[in-house]
Amino acid sequence: MRKQNFLFDKMTVGVCYYPEHWDRALWESDIKRMLENGITVVRIAEFAWNKFENEEGVFNFDFFDDFLDVCEKLGMKVIFGTPTATPPAWLTEKYPEVLNARQDGALYRHGGRRHYNYNSPLYRLFCARIVEKIADHYAKRPSIIGWQIDNELNCEISGFYSQSDTVAFREFLKKKYETLDRLNEAWGTVFWNQTYTKWDQIFVPRAPNINAVNPHLNLDYIRFVSQSAISFCALQSDILRKYIKPGDFITTNGLFGNLDNHEMTDKCLDIYTYDSYPNFAYGVDSVWDDNALSDRRWSRNLTEVRSICPHFGVMEQQSGANGWSTRMEAAAPRPGQLNLWALQSVAHGADFVSFFRWRTAAFGTEMYWHGILDYDNRDNRRLSEVRLFADNLKKLEKIRGSKFYAKVAYVKDYDNEWDSTFDVWHSRVSRASDAGIVEGLQFGHVPYDVVYLKDETLVSELAEYDVLIYPHPLIINEARISVLKEYVENGGKLVIGCRAGQKDMTGKCPMLPMPGLFSCLSGSDVIDFTFQSPAEKVPKVSFGNRELEAKVFCDIMEAKEGAKVLASYSGCFFEGRAALIEKEVGCGKVLHYGSTFTRDSVQAIMEYLGVLETFDEIVTLPGDIELVLRENEGRKYVFLLNYKHRKVEAKVNVRTRSLLTGKEVSGDITLEKFAVEVLEVL
Amino acid sequence: MRKQNFLFDKMTVGVCYYPEHWDRALWESDIKRMLENGITVVRIAEFAWNKFENEEGVFNFDFFDDFLDVCEKLGMKVIFGTPTATPPAWLTEKYPEVLNARQDGALYRHGGRRHYNYNSPLYRLFCARIVEKIADHYAKRPSIIGWQIDNELNCEISGFYSQSDTVAFREFLKKKYETLDRLNEAWGTVFWNQTYTKWDQIFVPRAPNINAVNPHLNLDYIRFVSQSAISFCALQSDILRKYIKPGDFITTNGLFGNLDNHEMTDKCLDIYTYDSYPNFAYGVDSVWDDNALSDRRWSRNLTEVRSICPHFGVMEQQSGANGWSTRMEAAAPRPGQLNLWALQSVAHGADFVSFFRWRTAAFGTEMYWHGILDYDNRDNRRLSEVRLFADNLKKLEKIRGSKFYAKVAYVKDYDNEWDSTFDVWHSRVSRASDAGIVEGLQFGHVPYDVVYLKDETLVSELAEYDVLIYPHPLIINEARISVLKEYVENGGKLVIGCRAGQKDMTGKCPMLPMPGLFSCLSGSDVIDFTFQSPAEKVPKVSFGNRELEAKVFCDIMEAKEGAKVLASYSGCFFEGRAALIEKEVGCGKVLHYGSTFTRDSVQAIMEYLGVLETFDEIVTLPGDIELVLRENEGRKYVFLLNYKHRKVEAKVNVRTRSLLTGKEVSGDITLEKFAVEVLEVL
Amino acid sequence: MRKQNFLFDKMTVGVCYYPEHWDRALWESDIKRMLENGITVVRIAEFAWNKFENEEGVFNFDFFDDFLDVCEKLGMKVIFGTPTATPPAWLTEKYPEVLNARQDGALYRHGGRRHYNYNSPLYRLFCARIVEKIADHYAKRPSIIGWQIDNELNCEISGFYSQSDTVAFREFLKKKYETLDRLNEAWGTVFWNQTYTKWDQIFVPRAPNINAVNPHLNLDYIRFVSQSAISFCALQSDILRKYIKPGDFITTNGLFGNLDNHEMTDKCLDIYTYDSYPNFAYGVDSVWDDNALSDRRWSRNLTEVRSICPHFGVMEQQSGANGWSTRMEAAAPRPGQLNLWALQSVAHGADFVSFFRWRTAAFGTEMYWHGILDYDNRDNRRLSEVRLFADNLKKLEKIRGSKFYAKVAYVKDYDNEWDSTFDVWHSRVSRASDAGIVEGLQFGHVPYDVVYLKDETLVSELAEYDVLIYPHPLIINEARISVLKEYVENGGKLVIGCRAGQKDMTGKCPMLPMPGLFSCLSGSDVIDFTFQSPAEKVPKVSFGNRELEAKVFCDIMEAKEGAKVLASYSGCFFEGRAALIEKEVGCGKVLHYGSTFTRDSVQAIMEYLGVLETFDEIVTLPGDIELVLRENEGRKYVFLLNYKHRKVEAKVNVRTRSLLTGKEVSGDITLEKFAVEVLEVL
Repeated sequence: MRKQNFLFDKMTVGVCYYPEHWDRALWESDIKRMLENGITVVRIAEFAWNKFENEEGVFNFDFFDDFLDVCEKLGMKVIFGTPTATPPAWLTEKYPEVLNARQDGALYRHGGRRHYNYNSPLYRLFCARIVEKIADHYAKRPSIIGWQIDNELNCEISGFYSQSDTVAFREFLKKKYETLDRLNEAWGTVFWNQTYTKWDQIFVPRAPNINAVNPHLNLDYIRFVSQSAISFCALQSDILRKYIKPGDFITTNGLFGNLDNHEMTDKCLDIYTYDSYPNFAYGVDSVWDDNALSDRRWSRNLTEVRSICPHFGVMEQQSGANGWSTRMEAAAPRPGQLNLWALQSVAHGADFVSFFRWRTAAFGTEMYWHGILDYDNRDNRRLSEVRLFADNLKKLEKIRGSKFYAKVAYVKDYDNEWDSTFDVWHSRVSRASDAGIVEGLQFGHVPYDVVYLKDETLVSELAEYDVLIYPHPLIINEARISVLKEYVENGGKLVIGCRAGQKDMTGKCPMLPMPGLFSCLSGSDVIDFTFQSPAEKVPKVSFGNRELEAKVFCDIMEAKEGAKVLASYSGCFFEGRAALIEKEVGCGKVLHYGSTFTRDSVQAIMEYLGVLETFDEIVTLPGDIELVLRENEGRKYVFLLNYKHRKVEAKVNVRTRSLLTGKEVSGDITLEKFAVEVLEVL
Repeated sequence: MRKQNFLFDKMTVGVCYYPEHWDRALWESDIKRMLENGITVVRIAEFAWNKFENEEGVFNFDFFDDFLDVCEKLGMKVIFGTPTATPPAWLTEKYPEVLNARQDGALYRHGGRRHYNYNSPLYRLFCARIVEKIADHYAKRPSIIGWQIDNELNCEISGFYSQSDTVAFREFLKKKYETLDRLNEAWGTVFWNQTYTKWDQIFVPRAPNINAVNPHLNLDYIRFVSQSAISFCALQSDILRKYIKPGDFITTNGLFGNLDNHEMTDKCLDIYTYDSYPNFAYGVDSVWDDNALSDRRWSRNLTEVRSICPHFGVMEQQSGANGWSTRMEAAAPRPGQLNLWALQSVAHGADFVSFFRWRTAAFGTEMYWHGILDYDNRDNRRLSEVRLFADNLKKLEKIRGSKFYAKVAYVKDYDNEWDSTFDVWHSRVSRASDAGIVEGLQFGHVPYDVVYLKDETLVSELAEYDVLIYPHPLIINEARISVLKEYVENGGKLVIGCRAGQKDMTGKCPMLPMPGLFSCLSGSDVIDFTFQSPAEKVPKVSFGNRELEAKVFCDIMEAKEGAKVLASYSGCFFEGRAALIEKEVGCGKVLHYGSTFTRDSVQAIMEYLGVLETFDEIVTLPGDIELVLRENEGRKYVFLLNYKHRKVEAKVNVRTRSLLTGKEVSGDITLEKFAVEVLEVL
Repeated sequence: MRKQNFLFDKMTVGVCYYPEHWDRALWESDIKRMLENGITVVRIAEFAWNKFENEEGVFNFDFFDDFLDVCEKLGMKVIFGTPTATPPAWLTEKYPEVLNARQDGALYRHGGRRHYNYNSPLYRLFCARIVEKIADHYAKRPSIIGWQIDNELNCEISGFYSQSDTVAFREFLKKKYETLDRLNEAWGTVFWNQTYTKWDQIFVPRAPNINAVNPHLNLDYIRFVSQSAISFCALQSDILRKYIKPGDFITTNGLFGNLDNHEMTDKCLDIYTYDSYPNFAYGVDSVWDDNALSDRRWSRNLTEVRSICPHFGVMEQQSGANGWSTRMEAAAPRPGQLNLWALQSVAHGADFVSFFRWRTAAFGTEMYWHGILDYDNRDNRRLSEVRLFADNLKKLEKIRGSKFYAKVAYVKDYDNEWDSTFDVWHSRVSRASDAGIVEGLQFGHVPYDVVYLKDETLVSELAEYDVLIYPHPLIINEARISVLKEYVENGGKLVIGCRAGQKDMTGKCPMLPMPGLFSCLSGSDVIDFTFQSPAEKVPKVSFGNRELEAKVFCDIMEAKEGAKVLASYSGCFFEGRAALIEKEVGCGKVLHYGSTFTRDSVQAIMEYLGVLETFDEIVTLPGDIELVLRENEGRKYVFLLNYKHRKVEAKVNVRTRSLLTGKEVSGDITLEKFAVEVLEVL
């Protein structure tokens, strides 16, 4: 499990608050009302640059001093944001070089947010100065318990195309490759005569093009974007560290693309906080499918967050309908969903849940991104539900810091994640399998962790799992193979899917039979491969007592010496060829499944590996209910979450006590619509 | 009823003609043929700048002098257009500052039309000069009866993003707000740190952005665009006024967005003329629904026009298939439709109907925007139909200047119209209800007017209606509430829908229970609200003997003291909550319906208010037939219009005489496909 | 039949090879393996500019000298490409004027291909120099048998908008029109006041606009693009001619839009080569319809190629799945399809088939555009199939140079082809009829040629066909009418469809009854016309024993003196009007069908004209099988190709011998999935 520098000392409820949006006369009553409803922390200031520096170089701290005075008087704690996500108009109009640009060079302009670029030396100076000034002035305030850097790094836009980015990209590449010869080799520039003969011929991707990219350049470009964001975050955390009180934490919020959140967390943060909006599942134009995960799918994201930081916070937890004035309109959360979604966060590892936002903005782009209170500022059902959640949370103090039970890990790595954002062969298999794996595990009650594999990953990080599913590691190297090999030899079970081993770290294809470097582990030989043809039916794979559909793509395989075929394809031109090959390696085994993972194929394989539906001893559950298990000092805690818009029946097979009601629970139970139960096994 | 400066002295048929498109040898035969077919007016010159000024500052009037000579010889009357919609290449290439721009700054270029901006000081100079020269030269010509300014202001593009627009926008804002503090307050710029500290930090909306706009800036921007168009129109009308003969009128044509047509008409015009193209309903890729309004929907637009100018003209009446060479391709009007659509215009208030165009363009972008004659210049079925219509029109002289009967008004205002163009929460409810209202009233035979509510609107303008339906007045102020209150107290019935009272005039949300300022009138209290969730069925509302669907959005309400609940929601989480609340106010009443208006809910409410299907004494009609009633000096005239592609049966319950056939009509009648009957009640 | 300067002296199999993509150590083994598998020619060097000139003006020829040494040692023949499709980074970064631009002026940048413009004087200098250097150095090498100019001219992008293009466009127009008056007249610039008063007011089409173009300008613009491409090709072929060995040929590859391939071939090439990728029919997102042509549709393209060059080559023949890393992903060809598609090329006239490519690229945008071998370089099923095809080809030596049997010609011309790319009324009828004609002829076993009609076309070129179908000659002139008249008078049968004769050569509409200049031939008079209305059912036409659907558009007609009505419309407002008119002219006849051509209407008309299913004496075939007939010195060769994913039955009614098996074949036969049979009639 990853270490982290900060743990909340009790289960905590917070809220996002914008003192600058409201008449000062409301501050005291707002804060008192929060405290009355169980909210003890506010997050502030992350878009308020002008409140500190309304004119270049002229600083003023009165506004937030006054606000902190109120907080300290009433006993409210504060997370203070750095305001760098929204530079002032005076800055961007005078120094447009600080702006991010569209691929064709058009600059993003004042009026939105995150329109700056990470690499502008000038913007970095401005940011360093404002952060230093703020930290210097406020860090000692007793109300402050933590700091948030910027807001949602890489949100909205995660591509950067300003001139500063091109300059920085060249430096990144010089450091990585040293010579143009090495770069040309790594990027395969001999293709289409792309060879670079001077460094200044290299640019970040430019428009227009013919929707043709050099994939190796693109992969390095995303690595560069990630480095740029981390460097920008580090610039601020390094300054903050100099000033903050002992015990205060540094965080940033959200979970966005083109960013190695693990590295950022290790380098800059004490705790990671996520922004959880399951209501996106209820967008007004959504097509509804009762059999889909919908809001339950946010457990996938929380699992991802847990991989970065096992005991995380949620900085923004949905409390109302979402919607900008221009897009993303959605229905209001139904009564019970607010509590359900907040407990979903807690079940997956959050010790701190801060709702977005206290009161709905009365103006601006986000006037439909509803908070707890409506424009009218009256008590309402959502405030009651926050109060209910706060009460619930007090009863879950035993859960805090407890371990999430998982014997299965879904293995990922940033190289493959990023490659699949633009390589459409890669993305088709990855997207299909991601849905299949998450659904297969969720509906099969297989609690799982996500593990990001890096060159420096230790086998001990893998060893706590019985099964690793690493669906489409197209990009792989010896270091990662080596740790996987050791994991398997020690008894682990590794599952891989089609296309494994196609590429090296540059995204180029080595001249090796696939699965390439995996061959030694998997005992499989991919003799042919194909996307599904629209002219034909989906191939079938009989496995166990199920008939699986080999969707999207097929590796057509033979088993090598020492490996055995567990299942074969039928109903296709490669009828009878191996679809699933198993090889025993040391005390463990490796399964190569030749296609993408569907809900069914995941469950079939998990069943074969003995990790499907293993909790019958404790509870008998329909797939409709999410099961989460937490363990602490030998005690087991079972979360049961009902996302359905109807009640669901289940059965508790041991003696348990509900942490929420305090009552003993066993035998048949009914989970009402949106209900959550947390049972301690007695 | 709004006053107007000009009334046609007889029912008149016109046509659009482009002498510059044809060999001069055709002029005489064309005009003679028009006259033979009942056409007595031609509209000319609106795209012919080069025919007057082929070189900067060098003017020549021979071409149109020659043409007017022919007109005057043959007795044809003329509406003369100013040519400012299509500046010459010599102008735009030498002075690109006159061009409109895309949001990203790219200039619209020569080759289309309306590529100029209203605010370029230089373009205003060029336009003033050409208009002055033309008016000075031609105004005394006896053939001329009226003037058209430019062509279709705000057509195609109603956003303006040139540098001149930014400069003018700043002036508009300085005049409106005087200080940046007031502007920052009005626009809520504290949100996302948008605060302006200098006027030159303000721009018209710029691209690229993240599809996030400041909605308050945007609302003012559209008000600015409207002002710009009106100012441009006034620049020309002020010049024309100095020269035109007594009795001649000034107009402009079309009906387009981002433009307060009422204010423009009051300031600049004597009569408003519309361009009516119901054939847009027959676009080649249209999906057809026999139950939809289709071409009958143009009655909605004509009603809108009538609100600007009760006795209007149609400058361009569809006479053939439409289509540019690049888009908008459509089928030819079917035999009978030309006459039907022209009489639709007449029924709704047109005393002048000018067809577009005499002969189909033989070249250019509009070579598929067919006129009466085809390329071959032979007599055809459409010319016969124009002749038929002209004959019909002569028989309808009694209708001229008669009042359109309406006891129901559909209330609108520009603030809400414009807000709903970019606020997607607003637009979803407005668009849904607009369709529901128009269909409900049309199919229910409820003749209605449109009334635009302004701060200066007098109660007398409202008092002629029994019922006002003001569906979604999100934006409202005290002045408008006050006149509505007086209307209701005097016995009027006001119907409002969901979201009423959400915003103030800046588009910001006051801290008030909704329906905000309407609360005192409606007696309703909106305790919660939501878009429909895709995960649930549409809530139902039982009212009268109907079960209505509460689509798109719901205000969840309680009745306050003195108000009563007429209907409640069912089948939703707010089961039993009020959906329709009535409050008696003075001699009248206010109904607040919590959802959007569907065809059914409109008819249910109109029935409840006693204004649905009130003409059974005169005629018994299926919904398929449009009913229009005109009144003049105590006489009633009934238009029956059949848009169906099949015959429809009806029954006349009183003695009437057909103005078209001269025969008495009563009892069962058959309206053939596309037939129109006009009956005088005897 | 068109003459050509080069004929292969034996049926030849080639492959595309990129020595610069692979370690030199592989060269020898690759070439040996090719030769072992029947491949005797490689195409090289077309994207390898930097291998010759890695720095401006510094030339080096070692790399390809070394490669040619290997070829000559092992006996491999070579087609050498000029590398102008991918200019080096050092060139485009230093001289951005050589780049093509988007309509809004943004330059296409280094990293893709074909990002240059044809008209940059500087780029033409650079290209002339590199071609001269390469030709001078390599032309005498004995391994070389031919030269390829550039790669796929007009592929990806066939619009050019750089400043050099505008300058060249003005020169093109000055040459064509001499005076602005003539240009203004030709372009109808009086419409929307587009009149040009100076040449420098004229530009290639610019963005943004309102999706309105001057169609006459646009037509000339495409003619200009074609001329530009041909001029660029001629620049290179003129140089190559000075250096190449006697007997070596010059070609270029592909078949792309906005290019008069016939003129280019006549001016510059010795033989035309096509790039055939039927696997595009199997794109992953394709919707499959067993009744559609799918990959069989490539026969349409091969027929087009045959019209340019009767005995052509295929420079790139599909050998694996296609797909860039960013788009166009497709399934792998099924076993048998590679051989089928290569024989499809041969059946239609290819004597040379060169597969793309030897081994799949291990990197770059095209790493999923699979070659014969996979990344792993192992023997595979595709290599076996290439070997099989090479063996088959040896057995088809009798076919080489034989004539493709066709008694029907599908007549086209570039003016109408290009006009239909932007005139949406034109494109809707053309696209519909193209599908109908190709399907009607294919499924009806009517072998046909394509003939491009030009002003200089001789009647002898038409006289070899019994029937010409010239579906929608909107643009027509006297010269073309004259040759068609002579063809018909001599006994030919001409079929035209709706909209014939609408326009003159500028794309303007003459003041003539339609079908305009065709009237004298067709005896038809178009009194009205319309697109289908979405509000009505499709009109029907009874003809022979079939009921045809008159889809998309209808000319509503009357027969003139001497013509007779063969069929009329029903189920529409023009019920009973003529739909099909026949007129006898001299010894032949002309049919005017008033609508677009569907599969059914084509077959009905071909049946009426006696050219449908005329091979029953030889074979009885279901529509599922493509029939191709080749004739040589009195011998008949029958190709039967099964594109179906299942076996199909047929019957051979004469004594034949299979060229592939050597066995006699007659009576019932089964064609397996993807099978091809080639029978010599005995």
